[in-house]
Amino acid sequence: MGMIVMPAISAIQETIAAELEQVCEIFERELASELPAVNELCAHVGRYRGKMLRPALVLLSARACGSIRPAHLTVAAVVEMVHMATLVHDDVLDEGELRRGSPTINRLEGNETAVLLGDYLISHAFHLCSSLDSLYALRCIAATANTICAGELQQVRQRGNLDLNIETYLEIIDRKTASLAQVCCRLGAHFAGADEQVADLLAGYGRDLGIAFQITDDILDIAGNEAQMGKTLGRDLAKKKLTLPMIHGLSKGNGELRSQLGVTSPSPVDRARLRELLDTTASLIYAQDTARQYITSATARIRQLPSSATAEQLIRIADMVIKREI
Amino acid sequence: MGMIVMPAISAIQETIAAELEQVCEIFERELASELPAVNELCAHVGRYRGKMLRPALVLLSARACGSIRPAHLTVAAVVEMVHMATLVHDDVLDEGELRRGSPTINRLEGNETAVLLGDYLISHAFHLCSSLDSLYALRCIAATANTICAGELQQVRQRGNLDLNIETYLEIIDRKTASLAQVCCRLGAHFAGADEQVADLLAGYGRDLGIAFQITDDILDIAGNEAQMGKTLGRDLAKKKLTLPMIHGLSKGNGELRSQLGVTSPSPVDRARLRELLDTTASLIYAQDTARQYITSATARIRQLPSSATAEQLIRIADMVIKREI
Repeated sequence: MGMIVMPAISAIQETIAAELEQVCEIFERELASELPAVNELCAHVGRYRGKMLRPALVLLSARACGSIRPAHLTVAAVVEMVHMATLVHDDVLDEGELRRGSPTINRLEGNETAVLLGDYLISHAFHLCSSLDSLYALRCIAATANTICAGELQQVRQRGNLDLNIETYLEIIDRKTASLAQVCCRLGAHFAGADEQVADLLAGYGRDLGIAFQITDDILDIAGNEAQMGKTLGRDLAKKKLTLPMIHGLSKGNGELRSQLGVTSPSPVDRARLRELLDTTASLIYAQDTARQYITSATARIRQLPSSATAEQLIRIADMVIKREI
Repeated sequence: MGMIVMPAISAIQETIAAELEQVCEIFERELASELPAVNELCAHVGRYRGKMLRPALVLLSARACGSIRPAHLTVAAVVEMVHMATLVHDDVLDEGELRRGSPTINRLEGNETAVLLGDYLISHAFHLCSSLDSLYALRCIAATANTICAGELQQVRQRGNLDLNIETYLEIIDRKTASLAQVCCRLGAHFAGADEQVADLLAGYGRDLGIAFQITDDILDIAGNEAQMGKTLGRDLAKKKLTLPMIHGLSKGNGELRSQLGVTSPSPVDRARLRELLDTTASLIYAQDTARQYITSATARIRQLPSSATAEQLIRIADMVIKREI
């Protein structure tokens, strides 16, 4: 999640600029409160919005299957709101201090306000969703929110478990991250009138992309540049959340890695040492390769659609996710 | 919220025992997860359920206007789930350690799990609500969840403000507590086929009852018996949340009260001293009188309905709220 908007994503966003603008308006209108304090908090959260990847997935999936309709704009605002809620609560859980170059709500206002603001965002997401006149969308979004929470709970429970295997790791990130990308694409297709087979293809694309996105995020948490990324890194290590590179390194029998990860509270400086240790087993490369496999799968799904400029854009977005030009 | 089920509420609950049992089944079925850890947490939260006042309001409002239908059972489970979510997050905010005689989730499992479990409960509440085939119910519940969050955010913002006035206090508790009781009664009436005027009467009853309930809760936080109530008390003082008795005492120009409330972090022992100070201005009695006025108003609304055994039960519940036989 680089601070600089790369030309590639920028060019794609230009093709949906008018619609993204409308999504922003819906987003802000829904969150407007008669309480000035609430408005200030929401304005701050607006800074985390960045490149609106999830709304873009809704809109581009719509266009890949037909055309963008008013329901898509609402769905796009809803998924962005769900995403913002998870970011705000994630920052509480991870004790993050920086998010997209701005201080996190928990740092600025304390955990209590951050917990409540996340609740405010999620309840408004459902409120906005209920304006859609579609119980289908609502059920999909609610089921996805359930899945995200279950994945996050599972992750917290697995913390400090040095025996976490790849299968469970993938299950967790599928739930906590990929499920939302998946529902973005599914609802984009659905409201464009796509049949179930096509909606499934797009949902599969979203899921693959989401998994690759999270693996890349986990790599960057170890190897990324904090200033460039505009957010607190090394949180996985600090919170003893085992991610794919660490699981791979441990599976290679690296004893120092095991004792390093077993330390009760690793200091921030350990991030550099962790990276060195993971380099000895090429574990970051392994994780990158895994992410790339998911992107290959995502691309193959889109190739099953009739070819179009929008299909090409979806493929390019997938590529950018692992190159993190996004 | 005494640990002992008082005969009065017990007798009323008996008249809806079969329906409450079904509500519990829906509640548990909705929360069942394939993840054992999640099930354990939900089972623990089940202990907080107590006397299910909110489901009882849905069911009795239904019966006061017609008969209890399947939709009422779902609505009742939804409101209880929303209520549980607020309790779990409230315990994080208030650093509560005891809830209905059991350790709180934050104490048992840490704040992170408690935040996520609250999120899990709220997202399941909406998921369950979306099974209703009623966008009306969904919109009401979502709007209420928004209102609760706004009220809680407002309360956090007002913390430590010794100039908080009664009007703003009432606004806060209307949002954070009364809005849910109000929607319970409104949806109870709505799904029993009541016309809008009758639904408004019941909603007004729920709102009055909710305000009286919260004022009583705030009195008990100062003057209640912790062992008897089964929850951590004195949290308002510790968290510098000004409640009606304190606002009244301050308005009487009690200098020692002002400096006591102004202390950066009052120790638990101050609860006894706070009570003594409030007694000098009869501030607890003032708050009790205010609560009683809301109950009088609630009762007057029910008296406008055709008289029935159920209407009498609603009136008795209102009385019990301030006598806290509930």
